[in-house]
Amino acid sequence: MSNVFGRLLRLTTFGESHGPAIGGVLDGVPAAVSIDWDAVQAALARRRPGQSSLSTTRSESDVFEILSGVYEGKTTGAPLAFLFRNQDVRSRDYQPMATAYRPAHADAAYDLKYGLRDPRGGGRSSARETANWVFAGALARQLVPGFEPRAWVDQVGPIRLVGAEEDYAREAIEASSVRCPEPETAAAMTALIEQVRSEGDSVGGAIRCVLHGVPLGLGEPVFDKFQARLAQAMLSLNAVKGFEYGSGFEAASMKGSQHNDPAKADGSGWETNRAGGLLGGISDGRPISFRVGFKPTASIARPQQTFDRDGHPLQLEILGRHDPCVVPRAVPIVEALASLVVADFVLLQQSRRL
Amino acid sequence: MSNVFGRLLRLTTFGESHGPAIGGVLDGVPAAVSIDWDAVQAALARRRPGQSSLSTTRSESDVFEILSGVYEGKTTGAPLAFLFRNQDVRSRDYQPMATAYRPAHADAAYDLKYGLRDPRGGGRSSARETANWVFAGALARQLVPGFEPRAWVDQVGPIRLVGAEEDYAREAIEASSVRCPEPETAAAMTALIEQVRSEGDSVGGAIRCVLHGVPLGLGEPVFDKFQARLAQAMLSLNAVKGFEYGSGFEAASMKGSQHNDPAKADGSGWETNRAGGLLGGISDGRPISFRVGFKPTASIARPQQTFDRDGHPLQLEILGRHDPCVVPRAVPIVEALASLVVADFVLLQQSRRL
Amino acid sequence: MSNVFGRLLRLTTFGESHGPAIGGVLDGVPAAVSIDWDAVQAALARRRPGQSSLSTTRSESDVFEILSGVYEGKTTGAPLAFLFRNQDVRSRDYQPMATAYRPAHADAAYDLKYGLRDPRGGGRSSARETANWVFAGALARQLVPGFEPRAWVDQVGPIRLVGAEEDYAREAIEASSVRCPEPETAAAMTALIEQVRSEGDSVGGAIRCVLHGVPLGLGEPVFDKFQARLAQAMLSLNAVKGFEYGSGFEAASMKGSQHNDPAKADGSGWETNRAGGLLGGISDGRPISFRVGFKPTASIARPQQTFDRDGHPLQLEILGRHDPCVVPRAVPIVEALASLVVADFVLLQQSRRL
Amino acid sequence: MSNVFGRLLRLTTFGESHGPAIGGVLDGVPAAVSIDWDAVQAALARRRPGQSSLSTTRSESDVFEILSGVYEGKTTGAPLAFLFRNQDVRSRDYQPMATAYRPAHADAAYDLKYGLRDPRGGGRSSARETANWVFAGALARQLVPGFEPRAWVDQVGPIRLVGAEEDYAREAIEASSVRCPEPETAAAMTALIEQVRSEGDSVGGAIRCVLHGVPLGLGEPVFDKFQARLAQAMLSLNAVKGFEYGSGFEAASMKGSQHNDPAKADGSGWETNRAGGLLGGISDGRPISFRVGFKPTASIARPQQTFDRDGHPLQLEILGRHDPCVVPRAVPIVEALASLVVADFVLLQQSRRL
Repeated sequence: MSNVFGRLLRLTTFGESHGPAIGGVLDGVPAAVSIDWDAVQAALARRRPGQSSLSTTRSESDVFEILSGVYEGKTTGAPLAFLFRNQDVRSRDYQPMATAYRPAHADAAYDLKYGLRDPRGGGRSSARETANWVFAGALARQLVPGFEPRAWVDQVGPIRLVGAEEDYAREAIEASSVRCPEPETAAAMTALIEQVRSEGDSVGGAIRCVLHGVPLGLGEPVFDKFQARLAQAMLSLNAVKGFEYGSGFEAASMKGSQHNDPAKADGSGWETNRAGGLLGGISDGRPISFRVGFKPTASIARPQQTFDRDGHPLQLEILGRHDPCVVPRAVPIVEALASLVVADFVLLQQSRRL
Repeated sequence: MSNVFGRLLRLTTFGESHGPAIGGVLDGVPAAVSIDWDAVQAALARRRPGQSSLSTTRSESDVFEILSGVYEGKTTGAPLAFLFRNQDVRSRDYQPMATAYRPAHADAAYDLKYGLRDPRGGGRSSARETANWVFAGALARQLVPGFEPRAWVDQVGPIRLVGAEEDYAREAIEASSVRCPEPETAAAMTALIEQVRSEGDSVGGAIRCVLHGVPLGLGEPVFDKFQARLAQAMLSLNAVKGFEYGSGFEAASMKGSQHNDPAKADGSGWETNRAGGLLGGISDGRPISFRVGFKPTASIARPQQTFDRDGHPLQLEILGRHDPCVVPRAVPIVEALASLVVADFVLLQQSRRL
Repeated sequence: MSNVFGRLLRLTTFGESHGPAIGGVLDGVPAAVSIDWDAVQAALARRRPGQSSLSTTRSESDVFEILSGVYEGKTTGAPLAFLFRNQDVRSRDYQPMATAYRPAHADAAYDLKYGLRDPRGGGRSSARETANWVFAGALARQLVPGFEPRAWVDQVGPIRLVGAEEDYAREAIEASSVRCPEPETAAAMTALIEQVRSEGDSVGGAIRCVLHGVPLGLGEPVFDKFQARLAQAMLSLNAVKGFEYGSGFEAASMKGSQHNDPAKADGSGWETNRAGGLLGGISDGRPISFRVGFKPTASIARPQQTFDRDGHPLQLEILGRHDPCVVPRAVPIVEALASLVVADFVLLQQSRRL
Repeated sequence: MSNVFGRLLRLTTFGESHGPAIGGVLDGVPAAVSIDWDAVQAALARRRPGQSSLSTTRSESDVFEILSGVYEGKTTGAPLAFLFRNQDVRSRDYQPMATAYRPAHADAAYDLKYGLRDPRGGGRSSARETANWVFAGALARQLVPGFEPRAWVDQVGPIRLVGAEEDYAREAIEASSVRCPEPETAAAMTALIEQVRSEGDSVGGAIRCVLHGVPLGLGEPVFDKFQARLAQAMLSLNAVKGFEYGSGFEAASMKGSQHNDPAKADGSGWETNRAGGLLGGISDGRPISFRVGFKPTASIARPQQTFDRDGHPLQLEILGRHDPCVVPRAVPIVEALASLVVADFVLLQQSRRL
């Protein structure tokens, strides 16, 4: 369960950032689908560290190997296994942390849970895992014709994008390495990230994502509401602290007469979309929008007060190479997780009709 | 999947508010547990409509019947089936809505998904389903000695509780029918709810919940992070629009040097709890805190513009009886869902060690 | 898991024969299906005790109550919950067995597993559970147009039916209460059953079942082979000791040149069906045939040597009322389980294609 | 589902015999277990083709690579991924079969199910998959101290081993390459296999397996009976046509007074074990015995009448290299599958108690 996502389109992942490889098995892919591998590679490139001065300089390899499930360019219906070999593994960087607990990291929790842990790079909590997700999400997206997930950076530290929410073009988003579609806000965000990096610090942020072209009627009424699966997916991302969809937490301040989306006068649908495209947990044809909040990267260069496995206090300086702000690189990851949710629901919905 | 919650402690629910009964099967309950039925009944009483002037006057029956799984007062290890007979079913109230789509309701989505729907009371989207959850959650809580979930109303409309977050006593919370532990804020919230009711309107709100006594090491590193399962559970609640834990969305505005919980000087743990008791998806012994945002009740008495199944525009007045604000009654539901998550993780963790 | 059967069409059952009720929740039934309730009732009547002098005289009630999932005669897509109230509960009959272990029963195993047990009627091991299966199977069968499972008694004690295997008509099967389609064999079987009953003894037997009209391509290549799911289903029946399909155990004695089904000369298919309609775990359009072997009923009237919970030896006479041979009444149960397998695979297969 | 086995100890496999690699992910392995890799390698060696003149000469590689889940010789609780690179891939051998359907093979069924197939070596139906199972089973076995599965060849063609069933020593079994523990029978079986090979033919057989040291109380009362999971596992093996446990199909011929295992006079247990170590689906401490029947290898060298994808009749000669009798090499596979079942139940049982 812990390492599986999805019901009918099921991604099982494995791997530690400092072991031989990471990878996964994507099961439930229908047969005879021609995969656009360039699109997969492009999604991985958007996630890769070192794309810009805003991200860590670790040069992770994005070269994937397909081990099964594809024959002459088409899926066969067999499980599609893939792996990414690990390279540039500088385990030395992690040596001081073999027993020390990095503040705001999973180190202590792993020791509590398992009684031991692999100190190299955080084990399963490594962000390298997200390469598996981006790979699988890029395949999943191709199973749903007309579906397009589009995410962007909505907030970096206190700087928040103000404006229309559902109409940003991919080009505008990708125009800046911070992936905020509004140029002036993007510039301010970039400056802030550069500044916290120079201070050996990090900063949080948020991502908004809109799902276009989601088929009607996806999601289940009670425990597998569309938003519940989306939330589960997003909270699987390491630094995520919150999820909201449609009107989100703002709805808490509103009255029903303000919040209920009124119908169009001609009865052809709803005037607004505070529902976020979901009613009763089910997609109704409107764009599905949600927002995800991230904490600042836990690994900062500044010396921090901590303790070790034996409870001895100590001061720790985290070496390694870490993004000062994770949100720009998290944009394709959010899109990938959403794609896995959507494709899984599409297959599930096919089993719901005779 | 749609109607099942949990992996090892599994709740399968059924029932529509205007059918003969609702109920469920709770499977995976260990044998030989003596259940405190008074505690179960007390939890149900806290959820019941008509407890106060703030809630709907529907007199749902809280009388449950146990069909299996208990012998001479103890669980037997067999599935525990239970049901609540429906009473006071006024289907007439719903007649005008047989074809009209109530704004911000699941009506249209159900028609899209299933091609037909039971128009009486919303079918599976009825809030009566939550009686099943409260019942099962009250049992689940008893499987984890020392565990106490404690939730309260944190916000009603624009009125938000300010203050310490982890120390409210159950008595303070239950002192007011609005379930806000701070008397003056509670009074203001109550006044606001009374006002929106008199206006035929409704209002949103938020709940904070703190889980005390959660065993160490619960939660899984990748796809079953504790917070991911909590989020999934909370987003299963009809009116919920957002979930955040620990520092939540506020973390987006912060720097790492501000956000990382520093260690205590003596190495005995962490000074603060912005982590919300969870690191890497795993419980670390600190209280686990989260917050859930609710939209205003969709059913309001005011006439609303909508359309019907055939796309004809019309004006709708929703009769029936509806809470002007759902958050006070949602407090025990949030606790129940959290209890199901915790007990399930406890059983899962037992299978993780030899 | 223990109380759930199926992946997409999922039956969750509950209940003990001497508790208030047994029942289940059938989830995943597509919406808008008109159920033929007479067919359901007819299937239950075929399973009922006391149909003939060959079976126990317990007068179990077959009256089911539908609690949810049906509106105006059609399924709604919501979980379909049903229950059978228990009647004629003679707990007294079971009193002597509160601590004694009945030979060849689950009593000792339950004590080992759970540390306690409900001694009334065997708890979850009661054959009354199979009423739930027959009910759900009769619904499942209706989800697959053209599908017809047809089972008959193939063996009672040493008496075994010889002859063609795939062409018995339902009328021939149901012509005798022993459900063997060949009149002379049926008469011999009946005489044997009457004889063992008069001796206070019981006798084993076997059932052959042929599934007609199974859609092409059902079953999965590796771990969910059609035959693997069938075997799992059949071995869930209390007295079943063996399962074989197609040529079965006889294949062990054969050479490949004898066993491989040869093709028809015109290339339109295979000449024979030693494959049993399944190749590589997947249905290929031929009838699917399998055979199930049952041990003699464990509850016999003769005094037996046993021991109790504390290891004290004792002699036990089992009162109660028990079938001297279970296979005639197991015929509709085998059909029901097979129907659940087939309908589940149909839904799964729908999710396998885009 | 199709490619996953187990509930808590979950094996997900992938790979085609003529693709780059086969492998799997074993999830749910508890942390801090020191794995005996020599035992794993030894189990693989017992399964390997070309061990003796009785088996195919394909020189599959048994060299596995561990990709994750192990650190400094111990499991970490993370998913354990492994792979076997494919070598010696003679795709040419399979060319004539690209469109022809081999009799008694899955070829036609795959075309029906998926609309296309990978003709090289049978895709997912390749017996090479069983290397994954043997690997995982050898690990699983190490999770259950004191557990020993012991299987042997019980039948080859019409030659069947007569004699005691639960006492054969590993040495006696492994003394002959046919893996029958009785020397004279082994010699006769060997002679028969050599003969059918020389005739370009194949022959069926059967395996008996006894599980020693299974913990008490494993198995679930209704749908996850121990024997049901065993049967499902065994019917996942390609050539398996039947499964029986304890007294098996012979029970069908018996009376209850003959079949019920009588208690020992001192009340210390049961005198015999026709129950096969399982009552009510639950292990009771006695050895668990079962038997598995295999059809003759479908790939025979003799020309066979078949047809192709377009329904054209043709005569086919299967080249490639194939075992004339699969049962000797299936012995470690049966043990491996049983080990996966047992270890999974052990973890499940741990979650059943508080």
